[in-house]
Amino acid sequence: MEKVDFYETKITGGFWREKLDLVRKVTIGAVYDRFRETGRFDAFRCDWKEGMPGRPHYFWDSDVAKWIEGAAYALREKRDPALEAVIDEVVDNVARNQWEDGYFNIYYTLFARDRRFTARDEHELYCAGHLIEAAVAYAGATGKTKFLDCMLKYAAYIEKRFVTDCDAGFKTPGHEEIELALVKLFEYTGDRRWLELSKHFVDQRGAQAESNPDWMRPQYNQSHLPVRQQRTAEGHAVRAGYLYCGMADIARLTGDDELKEACLAIFDDIIGKKMYITGGVGSSSGGEAFTVPYDLPNLLAYTETCAAIALAMFAGRMQLMFVDSKYADVIERVMYNGFLSSLSLDGKAFFYENPLEILPFMTGRDVSINHQSLHLPQTRRSEVFQCSCCPPNIVRFIPSIAEYFYTIDAGQKTPVIYLHQFAESETKIRTGSGVIKVKQKTKYPENGKLQITVSGANATLAVRIPSWSDGIKILDLKEALFVKKEQGYAYFSVTDGAVLKLDLPMKIKLIEARPEAVFDCGRVAVTRGPVVYCLEGIDNGEPLRDIRIDAKTLKYRENGPVKGVPSITCSAKRRYKEAYTELYTEAGTRPAVDLEAVFIPYYAMANRKETEMQVYTFADVSGKRIG
Amino acid sequence: MEKVDFYETKITGGFWREKLDLVRKVTIGAVYDRFRETGRFDAFRCDWKEGMPGRPHYFWDSDVAKWIEGAAYALREKRDPALEAVIDEVVDNVARNQWEDGYFNIYYTLFARDRRFTARDEHELYCAGHLIEAAVAYAGATGKTKFLDCMLKYAAYIEKRFVTDCDAGFKTPGHEEIELALVKLFEYTGDRRWLELSKHFVDQRGAQAESNPDWMRPQYNQSHLPVRQQRTAEGHAVRAGYLYCGMADIARLTGDDELKEACLAIFDDIIGKKMYITGGVGSSSGGEAFTVPYDLPNLLAYTETCAAIALAMFAGRMQLMFVDSKYADVIERVMYNGFLSSLSLDGKAFFYENPLEILPFMTGRDVSINHQSLHLPQTRRSEVFQCSCCPPNIVRFIPSIAEYFYTIDAGQKTPVIYLHQFAESETKIRTGSGVIKVKQKTKYPENGKLQITVSGANATLAVRIPSWSDGIKILDLKEALFVKKEQGYAYFSVTDGAVLKLDLPMKIKLIEARPEAVFDCGRVAVTRGPVVYCLEGIDNGEPLRDIRIDAKTLKYRENGPVKGVPSITCSAKRRYKEAYTELYTEAGTRPAVDLEAVFIPYYAMANRKETEMQVYTFADVSGKRIG
Repeated sequence: MEKVDFYETKITGGFWREKLDLVRKVTIGAVYDRFRETGRFDAFRCDWKEGMPGRPHYFWDSDVAKWIEGAAYALREKRDPALEAVIDEVVDNVARNQWEDGYFNIYYTLFARDRRFTARDEHELYCAGHLIEAAVAYAGATGKTKFLDCMLKYAAYIEKRFVTDCDAGFKTPGHEEIELALVKLFEYTGDRRWLELSKHFVDQRGAQAESNPDWMRPQYNQSHLPVRQQRTAEGHAVRAGYLYCGMADIARLTGDDELKEACLAIFDDIIGKKMYITGGVGSSSGGEAFTVPYDLPNLLAYTETCAAIALAMFAGRMQLMFVDSKYADVIERVMYNGFLSSLSLDGKAFFYENPLEILPFMTGRDVSINHQSLHLPQTRRSEVFQCSCCPPNIVRFIPSIAEYFYTIDAGQKTPVIYLHQFAESETKIRTGSGVIKVKQKTKYPENGKLQITVSGANATLAVRIPSWSDGIKILDLKEALFVKKEQGYAYFSVTDGAVLKLDLPMKIKLIEARPEAVFDCGRVAVTRGPVVYCLEGIDNGEPLRDIRIDAKTLKYRENGPVKGVPSITCSAKRRYKEAYTELYTEAGTRPAVDLEAVFIPYYAMANRKETEMQVYTFADVSGKRIG
Repeated sequence: MEKVDFYETKITGGFWREKLDLVRKVTIGAVYDRFRETGRFDAFRCDWKEGMPGRPHYFWDSDVAKWIEGAAYALREKRDPALEAVIDEVVDNVARNQWEDGYFNIYYTLFARDRRFTARDEHELYCAGHLIEAAVAYAGATGKTKFLDCMLKYAAYIEKRFVTDCDAGFKTPGHEEIELALVKLFEYTGDRRWLELSKHFVDQRGAQAESNPDWMRPQYNQSHLPVRQQRTAEGHAVRAGYLYCGMADIARLTGDDELKEACLAIFDDIIGKKMYITGGVGSSSGGEAFTVPYDLPNLLAYTETCAAIALAMFAGRMQLMFVDSKYADVIERVMYNGFLSSLSLDGKAFFYENPLEILPFMTGRDVSINHQSLHLPQTRRSEVFQCSCCPPNIVRFIPSIAEYFYTIDAGQKTPVIYLHQFAESETKIRTGSGVIKVKQKTKYPENGKLQITVSGANATLAVRIPSWSDGIKILDLKEALFVKKEQGYAYFSVTDGAVLKLDLPMKIKLIEARPEAVFDCGRVAVTRGPVVYCLEGIDNGEPLRDIRIDAKTLKYRENGPVKGVPSITCSAKRRYKEAYTELYTEAGTRPAVDLEAVFIPYYAMANRKETEMQVYTFADVSGKRIG
C-alpha cells in the first residue's frame, strides 16, 4: 500500500474546510502570539541570559517546530510572505546557532554545552525529530531548503554520535519522535541512511537497560522489552504513540514481520482495552500514561490532545500496511471527538486534557490544603500553557488531515484506491496507469450521503463502511460496478467518469462500553455517525448524572444551543431535587420531573461558561433501562 | 440531660457482646504486639538512641495512650493482672520521665528538648489529651491514681504555659484533642479549672491567625474562623470531629448558646451534605478532609476509621444536649457500618480507610511510574501501620460502646430515660429518685424485637424510633403506658416492674442518595435495619458495577457466604461479558445473564481474598429502574 500525498487533496468545502480556515485565520496566529509572548521565538537566537524573562525549557525547540510544520502545511495550500518571513527568521537563527558539528538545541546551547546527549529524558532527540519534521514540511511547501540542509547536517551528527562513534550517554531517547521524523526525512530525500538510523533507534529500544529518572519505570518510555516483543500499549501515551508510528513505518518500509506483529497486537490492545469512545487514550494523569486494561474513568480521564493525535498517526500508518477499516474508524473517532475537543470553536483556546466528564464543583474540593489531591482536568480551555505541546500539534494536525483520506494499492492489475475519510474534496492520485482524480461531494458529517466521481483511468475504488454505519447504501452507480464488501470496505470497479452515489445511513445510536469498562456500566453514549455527543449543565441543569433519557424520543437537529453546531434532543427525566430533605432517602419515594434534554457534539463542549459535562448517560428504551 | 456512666451498662449477650469479647481476647493483644514490635512501648523509657530500631514519632504517645484507654475499659469489666502490669510499666515510665515542671512527651524529651510548645502541628497537646483520657480511664477502671496524678501535673503545666504565662509558641494545637480530654478530666475530678482550660483552647481557635505548615490552609485545623462563627465542617476530619466534641462539651457544661448554635449547624452540615451512608466522613485523602458539599466518591472515599469514631463521639455529645433521634441515628450508622468495617472479623487487622467501593484492578494502574497517581484506599486490612491512630481507637471505641446507649433527663418531675441504642444489656441508672434498672432483651440487629424491663422507680422511658424504621410497634405493655411520639422517640410512662414488648419492623430497604450526591445517581444501597449491605466479587463475579438487582426478590438470610454473618440474596442480571468482542457496541444488542446476587453486611467486607466490593448497585423494581 502506498501513501497518497495529502498535498494532492484539496478540501473544497464543508466541515474540515471550515476547520482549516479557522486554523489558517486564527489558530496559527494565536499560537504564534503566545509563543512570541512567552519567548519561544526569541529563544532561537540562543542569547537568553539570566534575568531575562522566559527561561528557555528543553522542549521549546519542539513547540516552535510543530508550529512551523503546521504553518508549512497551510502555506502549501496558499503561500503567505508574512508567515514565511517569521519562519525564515527562525530558520536563520537555527542556521546561525547550529554548532559546527551539526548539533542544534536551544537549551543545551545555552545551559548545558558540556553534556550534550548525556541526559536521556531531556528531549534533545525529541526536539531534533520535530525540527526535522518541520524542515521537511517547510521544504515541501515552499521549496526552500535552508532549514532542511541544517537538519540533514544535524541528522548526520546524530548518526555519528549514536551509531558511528556510539559515544552518546544513552542508546535511545527518553521521548520518542526522532524515529518517525527520520522516516519522513528518508521519504522526502530518498536517502536510505535516514531509514537505517530510524531503524537503529527502534531496534535499540528495550534491548538493554537504560537509565531513567527515579520516578519512572522502563514501561514509561516503552523500554521494558525489545519493541518486537511488545504486545501491549504501555507508559506515556504520546511517547508510546510516536514510537508505534516509528515501528509501523519501519515495519512497512523494511517488510519486518516481527515489527508488524508487534504493531498489530499493540493497536488491538489500545482499541480493545484502553481507548475512550472519543478516541482519547492515556487515562492516567500519573505518567500521562496508558494503564491497565479497562481503566477508563470519565471524570479523571487524562486523554492528552497529543496522545489522540499520536493514535491517529499510528492508525494512519497501520492503514498503509493492512486493509482493515478499523484503522480508519479510529482515525475518524479521533478526528471528530477526542482530538477536535481540544480546540475551542473560536480557534484560540486549547484543552491539554479532554475528559469525558466535567464536574466544576469538584475543583474546589481541596478547600483545606494548598495543593490538588486529585488531578482533575481543566474545566475550560486555556490560551497559553507552560508545557505547550498540544496547541502546535493541533496547528499541524488539521492542515494535514487529508493525509488520512486515501491510500492506494498499486500492486494490483488495476490500482485499488482506498477512500477512508469523507469530506468535500478533490484528490489527484498518481498511479502507474496515470493520474486518477477522485472527487467527493458530501455534507459529511451532517449526513452520510456521498457522491464520488472518479476520472482518469480504470481503478478499483474501496469505500470505507464506518463501524457506526449499518452498511452502505448504493443509491446510483454510473461507470461503476459493485464488486464486494471485505474488511469494512465496499469495493467498486470504476472506469473513467464513474459517479457513485452512496449513503451511509446516519442514525442516532446509543453505544455502550463492554462490561469490563466499569466506569461506564449502566450508561450509554449518544452518537450520530462519527460524532459522540454530550450533555452540558448549561442546557440541561445540574447534576447531569441524574438525567435518564427516553431513547425513543431522540431527534437530530441541525442547530442547537451552540451556534453553528448541531444538537440532539430528547425527553428525559431527573429526580426532583427540591423533594429531598435528607441526604439518604428510601429509593423511589420522591417524584421525578420531565425535561427536554439537549445533547451537543462532544467536540463543541466547554465553549460557553464553566458548567457540568458528561458523555455517558442513563437511558431507557420502552421504559426499560439499557446499558 | 445527663450522661449515664457506661460502666453501669453490662452488655450481656448478642452482637456487641461478641465484639467486646473479640476485642478483649484478640484485638487488645494484637495491637499490643504490633506496638511492642514497633518500639512504641519501649519508647516510653525515653532512652532511644540513633541507630536503634523504631525511631519514636511525635504521635507515638497517643497510640499507646489510646490503647491503654481501651484496655482500661475492658479492665473495668474484668480485671486482668497481666494487662495491668503492662500498663503499670508504661505509667512508671511516664512518671520516671516526666519533667520536673510536669511536661511529658517522648519525642520532645528525646529530640527537641529546647523547643517544647513551639511547633503547632507536632501533636504535643494531642498526645497530652490522649494521655489524659487514658489516665482518667485507668483510674476509673482500677482506682490506681499514679497515672492520673502525673497527668494532673502535666495539665497544670499546660495551663501555666498557655494561660498563666502565655509563653507558648502557639495559641491552639494543630491537632485538637486536648479540649475534650480536659473536659473528661473535669468530669472525673470535679475541678472546674480543667473545664476552664478546655474552654480557653476552644475560645482561642480561629480568634487570631496562627502559623501552619505551607501546604495547609487554616480550614485544615478549623482555624479559619472563631469557632462560634463556624457553621460548616471543614478540614481534617478527625481534628474537626475532636474539636466539635470539645465545643459540644463546653456548650453543654457552660450553657453557651453561641457554641450550641455552631454545633447544631456543623452537625447538620455533616449529615446533610458530607456523610456517606456508612457514617464515614472525610471523603478526601488530600488533607484527610471534609471537602465541598456532596463530594462523596465511593471508590476514592478516604473515610478514616478515626473520623467515623469522632463523628459518633460528636453525636454522642449532641444527644446529651438535644432531644432528637438524628444523633443516635448517626451513632448507629457509624457503629454498624463505617466504624465496624475497620476491624476484621478475626479481630486482628484494620482498615485505616473504609471506602464504599473496592476495585482491585485499579491498584495496578500506575504500571509505568514509581508512585501512586491516584490515592486508592487499601483493598485489604493491615495488621500494622506506620501511622497507627486507628487500631487503638478501635480498641477504645468498642469497650465503651455503651456510652451511647442511654442519657437521662433528671430535670423533669419523673426522670426521663432516653434509650438510644439497642443491645442485650442491663443498666443501672442513678437518679434523684433512686436507682432505676433497665434491662434490654433483644437479638438486635438480627431483628428489631425488644423486650425492655424497667425496675426501681417511676420514670419516663423514651425509646428511639430509628430513621430506618417505619415506626415502632407496641406488642405488649405491662406497667407501662404509651404517651407520645416526639423527635424520633416513643415515650412511655413506666412504673417499677414495667415490661415493654416492642418491635422495630426490620425490612430490607433500598436507599438512594439525594441527586446532588452525583456519584450515587442511578444506584441504590441495600440496607436492613441499621446495617448497610454490599456486594463482593468473590460471591457475585466481576465487575460488580454491571449487576442490576431485581428488588422484588430480595430475601434476608441468617447465614451467608461469610461465617457467622447474615446475607441478603436476590435475583439479578448482568451483561454477558463473553458476548462482547469490541470495547464499544450498540447498546442493548447483547444478552444479559441471570445470577443470584449475594449481599453481605458492609462491616463484613474484605474478610476473604482480595476482591471487588461495592455498596451502591443498580436496581429494578417491577422491571423499572429506581434510584
